[in-house]
Amino acid sequence: MSRFEPNLRIPGPTALPPSVREAGGRQMVNHRGDEFRAMLRRVEAGMKPYFGTEHEVILLTCAGTGALEAAVVNVLSPGDPVLSVSMGAFGDRFAKVAEVYGAAVTRLEVEWGEAAVASDVRVAAAAIPGLRAVLLTHNETSTGVTNRIGELAAAIREVAPDALLLVDAISALGAVPFAMDEWGLDLVVTGSQKAWMAAPGMAMAAVGPRAWAAAESARMPRFYLDLKRHRDSAVNGETPWTPAVAVLYQIDEGLRLMQAEGDGVFARHEACANMVRAGLRALGFALLAGDSVASRTVTAARVPEGLDWKSFNAEVKARGLVLAGGQGKLKGKIFRVGHLGSVTTDDVLAAIGVLEEVAILQGLEVQPGVAVTAAQRALVATRTRQAVPA
Amino acid sequence: MSRFEPNLRIPGPTALPPSVREAGGRQMVNHRGDEFRAMLRRVEAGMKPYFGTEHEVILLTCAGTGALEAAVVNVLSPGDPVLSVSMGAFGDRFAKVAEVYGAAVTRLEVEWGEAAVASDVRVAAAAIPGLRAVLLTHNETSTGVTNRIGELAAAIREVAPDALLLVDAISALGAVPFAMDEWGLDLVVTGSQKAWMAAPGMAMAAVGPRAWAAAESARMPRFYLDLKRHRDSAVNGETPWTPAVAVLYQIDEGLRLMQAEGDGVFARHEACANMVRAGLRALGFALLAGDSVASRTVTAARVPEGLDWKSFNAEVKARGLVLAGGQGKLKGKIFRVGHLGSVTTDDVLAAIGVLEEVAILQGLEVQPGVAVTAAQRALVATRTRQAVPA
Repeated sequence: MSRFEPNLRIPGPTALPPSVREAGGRQMVNHRGDEFRAMLRRVEAGMKPYFGTEHEVILLTCAGTGALEAAVVNVLSPGDPVLSVSMGAFGDRFAKVAEVYGAAVTRLEVEWGEAAVASDVRVAAAAIPGLRAVLLTHNETSTGVTNRIGELAAAIREVAPDALLLVDAISALGAVPFAMDEWGLDLVVTGSQKAWMAAPGMAMAAVGPRAWAAAESARMPRFYLDLKRHRDSAVNGETPWTPAVAVLYQIDEGLRLMQAEGDGVFARHEACANMVRAGLRALGFALLAGDSVASRTVTAARVPEGLDWKSFNAEVKARGLVLAGGQGKLKGKIFRVGHLGSVTTDDVLAAIGVLEEVAILQGLEVQPGVAVTAAQRALVATRTRQAVPA
Repeated sequence: MSRFEPNLRIPGPTALPPSVREAGGRQMVNHRGDEFRAMLRRVEAGMKPYFGTEHEVILLTCAGTGALEAAVVNVLSPGDPVLSVSMGAFGDRFAKVAEVYGAAVTRLEVEWGEAAVASDVRVAAAAIPGLRAVLLTHNETSTGVTNRIGELAAAIREVAPDALLLVDAISALGAVPFAMDEWGLDLVVTGSQKAWMAAPGMAMAAVGPRAWAAAESARMPRFYLDLKRHRDSAVNGETPWTPAVAVLYQIDEGLRLMQAEGDGVFARHEACANMVRAGLRALGFALLAGDSVASRTVTAARVPEGLDWKSFNAEVKARGLVLAGGQGKLKGKIFRVGHLGSVTTDDVLAAIGVLEEVAILQGLEVQPGVAVTAAQRALVATRTRQAVPA
């Protein structure tokens, strides 16, 4: 054992800071009372700068997948031509939701580990007559790749100005700058257990005016995830159905911590991501994503040929470090390190230290200190760069 | 102020016992790890006796309304003939969900404040050719009435043996005996923030073999609330989407407390309900539900003509007692007292004491001690009766 509390390095749920844990243990209040109303309004308002929006942020009691469903069913009708731009398991899931509800989905499949290319997306969008919506993934949790959503949105707008842009921003929003309104996005969703440092159970959807207009005529059936019902209740500081009150306590506290940290949140995620990448590389692990498209919240590395991953991971786990495996077609081929939410550079250095120790003990040819040195160098280099005014 | 923590007497969310609060503040774990798997399996198994079922209990991350939607969309197809037996706002909501998803709903409307009559339900069911499902409410939270579900189910079975029986048992399951399998119910749902003493955010659905069979051919679209996907994941001790981990911690702890209390849980709810009814009557409030159909988890009383409810309730609230108002067509006409979950006879006596104090101060003709005496007598009478072996 290298610590008394696990180093939870999965891409959500993320570890909760002490004050967020305390918030989760608070007593219930009336969800139709003034105390709750003030909190709901504070959270809605506090979320907006992270989305980069002036529009409504709707709080839903569900997992991120519920928010993906909300994004689809509130603005689309069966038969609507939809382009899905998928670069991994969660992009595929988004497309699947649209198909289940009867959309006519065309899939643009991006190689897992790569980001979508704007010109490819433009061509694919231009090829679909009457294109109603494009499903985009901001940060693909299964591969550790972040799309340049602004560029993709601009490319789509050139050829399909009326298409709705629906964005899964679940696993990086809050950890990196985002500009929903500037990029012309219509509906963007995220989840409480990611950058927000809260337990899972709530999802947040920012909804722009074109999406609200689309909701007026959208014929996919919806009730529990009906955004309009939520907007109508939000006017009174309420949710239409009983919300996950304790999760909201935690989101409220997590936001307070994020606001206090300011832009430091983004800088911290950048430093942690760079440390993870440098440390893993120093250990000889090949990273799935190239530097230019690498996620700042989750990093995927290939399991080397010949390495007994089960035995390796058991040793890692015994030291308190919890990693995530691969998903979908990458199951067994990669492992993932989550570095989002409450992640600190201390956590990351400790994680790299454990990986290095286990690698050496398992016979990999690594000199003690190589990986932690690489991580430390990446930290200092990032901090030095960050300290220089742009 | 009569206390330092509000006496949260709304019908959910309910106040959390200290150890449940502590559970809500625990650190996150990997929801694909062994610790979580053990907890999910423990909760699923622990729930079954309260449902009175040997069949699967599925844990969903959503409010009770999400569970109502799950009950509908997993077993029905658009156009299916459905009978809705509604005796209040939540029965109406159940019917609305089925309508939104395209069921052909016939409504049997029961007067709000009364229970469904078996012979009426039998006649209504017999009149619908090819009846596919009946939507029943076990305990109507908006009126404080509990249906005799076993009798209603038997009556329906006589005339429509193949109809699926879908039951909203959200607000009383766990607080009163229930026998899903014995009564031949197909799908029964409840929610974490009711008798289970946990925060809101998860719902539980018990699903019988006829419902699973129906799910094979049901054509209403579903993804997030797909029960089959949940069953497939549950085999591995997982949920298909990230669950509300902290709410599950609390359900797990709440169940532990309930198991330790045994049948005392039912006895306590009976005693509290009787105390509330006796106390309110002694204050001159007319109860909405008759004794024979009265809920053991929530009591609705009419706001007397001439009483300024806003001013009355403000005084009540200033003393820490939090009541619920009316819903739907009873808004402004009734108030409701919740007595479920962690409710104790101490809490109820305190609530009646505050209501009595405020009633007197507001000029109602009540002698000090009348209401608390009535509540105390009801307590002793109930406890005496409970102590006598059946």
